Amino acid sequence: MKAAVFQGSGSVVWQDVPDPGIKDPGDAIVRVDAVTICGTDLHILKGDVPEVTPGRVLGHEAVGTVVETGQDVRTVRPGDRVLISCISACGRCRFCREGRYGQCRGGGGWILGHLIDGTQAEYVRVPFADLSVHPVPSRVDSVEAVLLADIFPTSYEVGVLNGGVRPADTVVVVGAGPIGLAAVATARFYSPGRIVAVDLAESRLRAARELGADATATADEGPEQLVADLTDGLGADVVMEAVGVPEAFEMCTRMVRPGGRVANIGVHGKPAALHLEDLWIKDVTITTGLVDTFSTPMLLRMMAAGRLPAAELVTHRFALGQMEEAYDVFGRAADTGAVKVVLGGPQHTAVQVPDAAATG
Amino acid sequence: MKAAVFQGSGSVVWQDVPDPGIKDPGDAIVRVDAVTICGTDLHILKGDVPEVTPGRVLGHEAVGTVVETGQDVRTVRPGDRVLISCISACGRCRFCREGRYGQCRGGGGWILGHLIDGTQAEYVRVPFADLSVHPVPSRVDSVEAVLLADIFPTSYEVGVLNGGVRPADTVVVVGAGPIGLAAVATARFYSPGRIVAVDLAESRLRAARELGADATATADEGPEQLVADLTDGLGADVVMEAVGVPEAFEMCTRMVRPGGRVANIGVHGKPAALHLEDLWIKDVTITTGLVDTFSTPMLLRMMAAGRLPAAELVTHRFALGQMEEAYDVFGRAADTGAVKVVLGGPQHTAVQVPDAAATG
Amino acid sequence: MKAAVFQGSGSVVWQDVPDPGIKDPGDAIVRVDAVTICGTDLHILKGDVPEVTPGRVLGHEAVGTVVETGQDVRTVRPGDRVLISCISACGRCRFCREGRYGQCRGGGGWILGHLIDGTQAEYVRVPFADLSVHPVPSRVDSVEAVLLADIFPTSYEVGVLNGGVRPADTVVVVGAGPIGLAAVATARFYSPGRIVAVDLAESRLRAARELGADATATADEGPEQLVADLTDGLGADVVMEAVGVPEAFEMCTRMVRPGGRVANIGVHGKPAALHLEDLWIKDVTITTGLVDTFSTPMLLRMMAAGRLPAAELVTHRFALGQMEEAYDVFGRAADTGAVKVVLGGPQHTAVQVPDAAATG
Amino acid sequence: MKAAVFQGSGSVVWQDVPDPGIKDPGDAIVRVDAVTICGTDLHILKGDVPEVTPGRVLGHEAVGTVVETGQDVRTVRPGDRVLISCISACGRCRFCREGRYGQCRGGGGWILGHLIDGTQAEYVRVPFADLSVHPVPSRVDSVEAVLLADIFPTSYEVGVLNGGVRPADTVVVVGAGPIGLAAVATARFYSPGRIVAVDLAESRLRAARELGADATATADEGPEQLVADLTDGLGADVVMEAVGVPEAFEMCTRMVRPGGRVANIGVHGKPAALHLEDLWIKDVTITTGLVDTFSTPMLLRMMAAGRLPAAELVTHRFALGQMEEAYDVFGRAADTGAVKVVLGGPQHTAVQVPDAAATG
Repeated sequence: MKAAVFQGSGSVVWQDVPDPGIKDPGDAIVRVDAVTICGTDLHILKGDVPEVTPGRVLGHEAVGTVVETGQDVRTVRPGDRVLISCISACGRCRFCREGRYGQCRGGGGWILGHLIDGTQAEYVRVPFADLSVHPVPSRVDSVEAVLLADIFPTSYEVGVLNGGVRPADTVVVVGAGPIGLAAVATARFYSPGRIVAVDLAESRLRAARELGADATATADEGPEQLVADLTDGLGADVVMEAVGVPEAFEMCTRMVRPGGRVANIGVHGKPAALHLEDLWIKDVTITTGLVDTFSTPMLLRMMAAGRLPAAELVTHRFALGQMEEAYDVFGRAADTGAVKVVLGGPQHTAVQVPDAAATG
Repeated sequence: MKAAVFQGSGSVVWQDVPDPGIKDPGDAIVRVDAVTICGTDLHILKGDVPEVTPGRVLGHEAVGTVVETGQDVRTVRPGDRVLISCISACGRCRFCREGRYGQCRGGGGWILGHLIDGTQAEYVRVPFADLSVHPVPSRVDSVEAVLLADIFPTSYEVGVLNGGVRPADTVVVVGAGPIGLAAVATARFYSPGRIVAVDLAESRLRAARELGADATATADEGPEQLVADLTDGLGADVVMEAVGVPEAFEMCTRMVRPGGRVANIGVHGKPAALHLEDLWIKDVTITTGLVDTFSTPMLLRMMAAGRLPAAELVTHRFALGQMEEAYDVFGRAADTGAVKVVLGGPQHTAVQVPDAAATG
Repeated sequence: MKAAVFQGSGSVVWQDVPDPGIKDPGDAIVRVDAVTICGTDLHILKGDVPEVTPGRVLGHEAVGTVVETGQDVRTVRPGDRVLISCISACGRCRFCREGRYGQCRGGGGWILGHLIDGTQAEYVRVPFADLSVHPVPSRVDSVEAVLLADIFPTSYEVGVLNGGVRPADTVVVVGAGPIGLAAVATARFYSPGRIVAVDLAESRLRAARELGADATATADEGPEQLVADLTDGLGADVVMEAVGVPEAFEMCTRMVRPGGRVANIGVHGKPAALHLEDLWIKDVTITTGLVDTFSTPMLLRMMAAGRLPAAELVTHRFALGQMEEAYDVFGRAADTGAVKVVLGGPQHTAVQVPDAAATG
Repeated sequence: MKAAVFQGSGSVVWQDVPDPGIKDPGDAIVRVDAVTICGTDLHILKGDVPEVTPGRVLGHEAVGTVVETGQDVRTVRPGDRVLISCISACGRCRFCREGRYGQCRGGGGWILGHLIDGTQAEYVRVPFADLSVHPVPSRVDSVEAVLLADIFPTSYEVGVLNGGVRPADTVVVVGAGPIGLAAVATARFYSPGRIVAVDLAESRLRAARELGADATATADEGPEQLVADLTDGLGADVVMEAVGVPEAFEMCTRMVRPGGRVANIGVHGKPAALHLEDLWIKDVTITTGLVDTFSTPMLLRMMAAGRLPAAELVTHRFALGQMEEAYDVFGRAADTGAVKVVLGGPQHTAVQVPDAAATG
């Protein structure tokens, strides 16, 4: 089969590799129908994730069709259309028993396209299939469902739930990339009073407004003053960090009200300053987290009910064989305006010129 | 009357001042029977709390007898023995309505011995008396009850409750001064599997063991390795910071397990480094907070039931008129072994030589 | 002044009574601008609430303008437009400290139009004003705000919050009178997957659909089968009882899924059968409650933001002086189609023929 | 092998049956070392549980040694000493993913000694072994551990956790049989202010006091008045029903305070009257539930730490081959004073005369 293979030198190549097969009784082999590229994949290309070794098939998000299952797989069978979660779950360790699949100690966690071959391929082996894939309701399009493999549960669990969004709250989302936009969309499940989105790029803030942000500010427009003005100087009830740099995190801790919550979603590479001289007295809660994907079935139900506007995030579509081109477009997001690129999906077995590129 | 008056120059003097009187319908005037000195008072002497101006009567903890009440006070009356809370609560603002009295926006919060005259005096005016004093059950000794004015609710609310201690947890308390010791004592309400106390001083760790710590380590004894060994390398479920310096806080964030909680109780004067490059993926919750004292009635019930070992913290006792001597002993805790000093209380209207000084 | 005085014999008369005055330092005197009639008022007329004695001015819901305050009132002043809550709160007792104002032991709770004179009058004395009235944002109309005095916080707190509605849940509301309709409207704050409303009257179910119910059934249409069909036989996540009769409550307990919640909002006059032989094994939670009105400030913010569709519930409007006529229309709701009647409010100082009567 | 086989006619016989073998990749075969008899087994004998058909091997509690595992079992292996939980968990269905194993829809739940052959045998096949057995720490005795198969997690999860016991609470446990006694013991994890036990038999109340009850009352001694007296007439914070008859449940609902919780643990055979005419206004929460056993690992840690006094419940011990005699003694508990009988365990491969029988 063909797959996107990491070359160890900043590049990925769509090339022939051996077909995967069942190794364990809990495995499923899935034919990939739709797949996307994550910001993390770009980090891998840059060499930021040393556990990923040359020769690895990348990708941890996909929708596909089960073609074979191990003898202990009970919940899906060949022919089922399934969402492949970015997190695999052994289901047996203390963390899996609490639904903290992202912290799995039994061989799961984030392994696809990381420690084992991933989803940017024509076929993929998914371990622990019963807890790691989800049947997709017939009403749900594969191109939308693939966004529930990682970014939507990440934003919802690590941002919205950790942040404890409540009706009438003032919610700030710092960073309006795919994760921040999904945070805006899922924060609305709890009817906040207003959502404020902050980003460097006006084009992303426009997308945030379309997804439900009530107010937006670029860094130049004084987001801290905006939040203060909107809250009588008190600060926001919930602030989510969806960037992954110290400056953004530190701004979040300045924008939160006494008694409020800062939910970090961003992937960070260096420390931030925690201004305990100000914060110790403020009753602030700060959370971090890797996605667990326990919320994926609920998100699928919301999507099936037409209550999760995910399609808006897909700016570019490609055929599966256009993997290298898709990496290029997604890797130059500032130029191309790419938010999420999806490869494959219905009516996309052939090449297609994306018209959404004009967004940027 | 006599009172401990801040001189603005590192010193406090027990001197004559005018008697306090009712100013607002919610006020009570209380005759002070037992009072203690807080670490914060020492910070005031050093000039670290600039809002406290020369001439201010210090002190925010006391037990006394109500002698007069304003016309809108409904829950106490002259003759009642009451605990004066370190936090006053207007009862009307949005924070008070949530029980977050420490964040009161209606004129309360920490005001005694800070923004208005305090409790280190023969008499004190307590605003918002209905929500700011608590009747003391007859079985409870004033010398013990005074410890519920600040340190026990602080440790319990900001440490134990924010930390979410649960049965069988491994709990680490970093810092075994009065706050850390009260955290050890109140963490036991939730039957943790083990409590580990960490401090620089072996004498304090001995006190921690007497209050229920199962294991202790000085900084030299490798507390991080101890916690790793006790938890199969996973880390502690709950870690409380009861020191107030960056190094201690940062150690807490290294000792916590994935999915665990760090509860900061310490008063900090400068930033700490938050190692988000390690923590972002660990599902960690970090909390800060000022005490609200909503738990004080519960703590009084536990004390009345003989289930709160508070007396062990009182190392020195003085008559009220020995205020300056008490400040001296408490200010040199490293030499004197002072944990908590109490002035006044039954059988202590005259001078007494404390025999607990040998603890140091 | 004029007021609606209970005559002790099934009738209420709009008659002259003495003007109220300040009695306690916490009192406010409010001129009533808009007032409504509650189902409870009808129960009083029937003699079902024996604590209400002849001569009592009825009413526990209103919006008005403060004309005088006692010397301990701090949060409102003459000229402020305020919502008068159906619950008064002493703010001092153990229940008020937890926000359980409905259970107040300090002289509050439901007292207006019950134990003291109420709001169906030109003026009313409100005790404990700081915790018992709420300033109304300028964008909010008095006719809508008056619905936040009782029915919206009741439905939200006792139904939606006790029921623990979560995104994607199947929620059933049994009873589509004012309380049930407000439950439908506020359940949507949490983005349930679907809301099913059940009532005897198709006209009420139509109103439920307009407020957001996704499916409805009359008793004849087999609501239990409908819920079973919609949930693959499992049952609903949350079921709210908004009727107050044993049959309705018992149906709720049959419609709930294992692990689900039944939130009783209805006022009951006799016991129901609790089928523990079926329920003991089902992990069911059943809650009851009187409204506390802690959520009123949040509901006012949602209304000010245009996110709470309350006006739809007002079917009839009258001038204040048409009190007896309003009682008649509301008392014959089955004939008149009355859901909520409001007296007074902007542009309603004179008589007006309600055109919403056609709803019935 | 030998096993206790249900005869369908009120009797059980210890007789030869075929040895069990692996059927599914997730199965484990366990040699039974210690086993106990549950009150439910007596109900089966009486014919109250029609799903249990003649020929079924009874028993759903045991400690044993793994002798063989299916190829998908990952967490235990032959030679491991394990606790066999009364609940088996598929680990894949929506309920298992939430830790609600008792509601398993994937073939688990209570199946041992019910729908498949059980633990009162020399060997037992345990399906879904990874989630249905627990390694026993070496410090823990098998005779004590076997009490964690059912009664301790039942009392803790369905009673103490559902009841939400908090420090200083007044807790009432109605029924002081094995479940009620385990509820007394585990309620203490949360440091209630007092525990009141109620039963018909003084001998059981004596056992309750030994396990930590602070006050006790037989039905004749006026338990409702006792609770009222202890709580200034307010009622208990938490009341647990551990009997399973309507009268006991109804008494619980009369003893709870406004805002309190009634946790039903008892297995009921008929409806109770729910006095909604009193309860609707009281903010009461009522819970029911089947044990999930998610707490078993925590209880094992508490037992290993010496913090769970379980051995006190074992009044009689037998060799495994004395099964019929053990049933007889347990079945006549009123005469024999049996609380829990344990068969097997260290030093009990031979017949032994229990000396604890004198308790009754």
